[in-house]
Amino acid sequence: MDRINLREKYQQFDEHWTPKIIAELNGQYVKLAKVKGEMIWHSHAEEDELFVVQQGTLFMDFRDRTVVIGPGEILVVPKGVEHRPRTNGEEVWLMLIEPKSTKHTGEIQHELTVQNQEWI
Amino acid sequence: MDRINLREKYQQFDEHWTPKIIAELNGQYVKLAKVKGEMIWHSHAEEDELFVVQQGTLFMDFRDRTVVIGPGEILVVPKGVEHRPRTNGEEVWLMLIEPKSTKHTGEIQHELTVQNQEWI
Repeated sequence: MDRINLREKYQQFDEHWTPKIIAELNGQYVKLAKVKGEMIWHSHAEEDELFVVQQGTLFMDFRDRTVVIGPGEILVVPKGVEHRPRTNGEEVWLMLIEPKSTKHTGEIQHELTVQNQEWI
Repeated sequence: MDRINLREKYQQFDEHWTPKIIAELNGQYVKLAKVKGEMIWHSHAEEDELFVVQQGTLFMDFRDRTVVIGPGEILVVPKGVEHRPRTNGEEVWLMLIEPKSTKHTGEIQHELTVQNQEWI
């Protein structure tokens, strides 16, 4: 029940596409991620995901369009919807909120997939 | 499935202590609130609440201490814990995430209590 300073947490890791858990509420985790380049296409069968952009510009590809999200903007990706987050070469800082059951890349196993996400 | 710009949403209302719903995920609402002055003491029996400070400084009183939260900081208030949010006279902009079942001031009815929170 302490405040959590996002910048201090971001300073604790450098890896890309490796979400770190910083808080928990109502069966969900709050996570921070630094991302750069392109993730793989994936979906989460039962979990909605909230993306909050803290720094940089995130491009979220859907099969029919791309949504561009900057600092101070948020996006909900509903369960079951295929998506591919990517950046335009820059490092982007994200805050994510999703159920604890959420698998990193859904049912797809890939070299980018992180099996066990850690707390920081 | 569009991006939501928080500043644009904040510009749509001026009332204090009147959270507005801007998104929904996993049975929870994402809300924005402008707050100033002092809320009443209350708790939520079954719901954890996430506070994300966007602008200004929020003081969260607990019965045994006060947590100070600024921009770029977050706080989870666990279910059942009595709390009283307040500001130091300034207007503070918050983003909240909490279950759809969450009552504004828990089981307490007060003139500040908002029964039906609206979408913007």
